[in-house]
Amino acid sequence: MTDDWLNKVNWSTDGLIPAIAQEEGTGKVLMVAWMSRESLTKTVEQGEAVYWSRSRNKLWHKGEESGHIQKIKAIYLDCDEDVLLLSVEQTGGIACHTGRESCFFKKLVDGQWVVTTPVIKNPAQIYNK
Amino acid sequence: MTDDWLNKVNWSTDGLIPAIAQEEGTGKVLMVAWMSRESLTKTVEQGEAVYWSRSRNKLWHKGEESGHIQKIKAIYLDCDEDVLLLSVEQTGGIACHTGRESCFFKKLVDGQWVVTTPVIKNPAQIYNK
Repeated sequence: MTDDWLNKVNWSTDGLIPAIAQEEGTGKVLMVAWMSRESLTKTVEQGEAVYWSRSRNKLWHKGEESGHIQKIKAIYLDCDEDVLLLSVEQTGGIACHTGRESCFFKKLVDGQWVVTTPVIKNPAQIYNK
Repeated sequence: MTDDWLNKVNWSTDGLIPAIAQEEGTGKVLMVAWMSRESLTKTVEQGEAVYWSRSRNKLWHKGEESGHIQKIKAIYLDCDEDVLLLSVEQTGGIACHTGRESCFFKKLVDGQWVVTTPVIKNPAQIYNK
């Protein structure tokens, strides 16, 4: 496998592009994180989502602490080649660090952001194993 | 309606955040574009997606040329408050400027990006009305 497919990606000046994780089957949008050339390569090689953590400035194998890994079912690139869409199987049914299924749990209702989904597992239980 | 809900959004240093448009019902991820404070305000006021075009550096009422407007059904914010998810009704069933339903039509298959979905309408017909 050559690097042609990696070169086709329009990496931004900081070398990253956003990646949307969508649950296969349900179509739920679970989260958005960032990928570098290296993290996308590892994602493909390992068949599990490996992002680039901008806050920790390092590779982030999603689920490495929580166990909530994302198995890759398909990877799509958009028309401008600057956003990735990952179709994933979400281990544990929890993608968000708050213990919720999806990170998109605040809905705009009458000018307020309202929490719409429950915490499935207490984050303290997820991260202090 | 106060601006509190707008202030809750973690606008990046350039004043923008990414917005994912997802089709209500099917759950298909249609596209990703950017929103400014002003474009998000107009989106809510008008009930139709108004993005900020980074290439044209101006407000972009999606569908203003193509007719492919996106009616807003719901707006979600993620846990970090720096990504929006729009649940939309896609007029004409076409979100992509290439004339396809979704912008995510290139799938990674054996180290190559393969086009997976058809052009529904020729872009020349969409934009030269």
